[in-house]
Amino acid sequence: SSRRLKLRISYERLARLHPADIADILEELSRDEQRSLIEALDHETAAQIISEIPTSMQAQLLESIPVEKAADIVDEMPPDEAADVLQELPPETSAKLLADMEKEDAQEVKELLGFEEDTAGALMTTHYIALDGSATVENVIEAMKQFEGPIESIHSVYLVDAEEHLVGAVPLARILLAPANTPLQALSVEEVRSVQTDTDAKTVIDLFRKYNLLALPVVDDKNHLVGLVTADDVLDLVVRRR
Amino acid sequence: SSRRLKLRISYERLARLHPADIADILEELSRDEQRSLIEALDHETAAQIISEIPTSMQAQLLESIPVEKAADIVDEMPPDEAADVLQELPPETSAKLLADMEKEDAQEVKELLGFEEDTAGALMTTHYIALDGSATVENVIEAMKQFEGPIESIHSVYLVDAEEHLVGAVPLARILLAPANTPLQALSVEEVRSVQTDTDAKTVIDLFRKYNLLALPVVDDKNHLVGLVTADDVLDLVVRRR
Repeated sequence: SSRRLKLRISYERLARLHPADIADILEELSRDEQRSLIEALDHETAAQIISEIPTSMQAQLLESIPVEKAADIVDEMPPDEAADVLQELPPETSAKLLADMEKEDAQEVKELLGFEEDTAGALMTTHYIALDGSATVENVIEAMKQFEGPIESIHSVYLVDAEEHLVGAVPLARILLAPANTPLQALSVEEVRSVQTDTDAKTVIDLFRKYNLLALPVVDDKNHLVGLVTADDVLDLVVRRR
Repeated sequence: SSRRLKLRISYERLARLHPADIADILEELSRDEQRSLIEALDHETAAQIISEIPTSMQAQLLESIPVEKAADIVDEMPPDEAADVLQELPPETSAKLLADMEKEDAQEVKELLGFEEDTAGALMTTHYIALDGSATVENVIEAMKQFEGPIESIHSVYLVDAEEHLVGAVPLARILLAPANTPLQALSVEEVRSVQTDTDAKTVIDLFRKYNLLALPVVDDKNHLVGLVTADDVLDLVVRRR
């Protein structure tokens, strides 16, 4: 049928499209076609694409494929996205997926599931780079090479002390201009703004607007760095609330 | 009076505050106090603070101080902010200010004034870094040192050909990881998304959401790079529209 043909053409071109564009195509397919498309992709690509569709559709799709495959995909999703979809799934499915995920990823996601909706904790991602203040430009490069997400999403590096307390932040632009052996604490911004995990979404939005932020570190009640709220998620939140 | 005393204390602490926080204080002062505070600050600091208050208050304040001082301050404002406030002022005042500004800055602002409200052209800033694709990491560092705005606001460098056509974009993270002599075109993202100056604000917002953008280049009808819409301005726009 012409429908099949369309899908076959898409396969060949998919690799060249942005995940958000593939997600647009995915949304127009039938349930069966969606499932075969997702099952045909590698986990990482599938995770990128699923991250771009509405949470309710994510849940339907993940429920329709074998749990091992679904767990592999959720493993590769940004932890905040993974937590959102697990919250949407029936508790048994959610538990099965968590049991099948990599231990460390499952742990990260479980912690995110503990935060109340519309708080900084529920909004944040746990993918960020935190280093000791004595770390140098070279250490940043090393950390970026080991970063789990796309390196293009890194715009600042956060500084923590030996107990993981947030003590500073360094924009990449400053790192690029500094000699390779400069300790990061010498490059830190004058004042790092942060919020606690239970800070409400409205306060987060207000801070982003007031200080023109691209990212806002999130700390627990002992000022340990635990996450990062990013501008793209804040924009989504504001648009959804309109 | 206690009011005067409060203002005097503020002066001493002002330098340590974020411009957005000084702007909050400014908004609570009387007109006279606002004027003397702004006149006491250097142009650059005054411009940073004025950029953080509502446009109508910016206009009132700039009308209340000598035109030469006002022109010096508008000179230091981001071009898109400067255009917004000039649009709010009576045409004669606006014309006087433009006549008193540095020629190059006035020219930039005049071009921005030509764009219809709620289009990419009216939303964009003209502060960005554009280089030839054969430029290297070292050339980026040089350009950043000469950048007019705060370097922390740079997250990507744009690539243009000899006729200023937009041909690529390189996130700072990629530049940081690349050897110093790498030509930028080897680091460019696969596909640069851009909009034309007359693209409506809704489309701009949709693109930011769909592709999780932090910045979106703006081109004229011949694909010449002419500006950049940034995520903070898009967030402001969405909040204002609610």
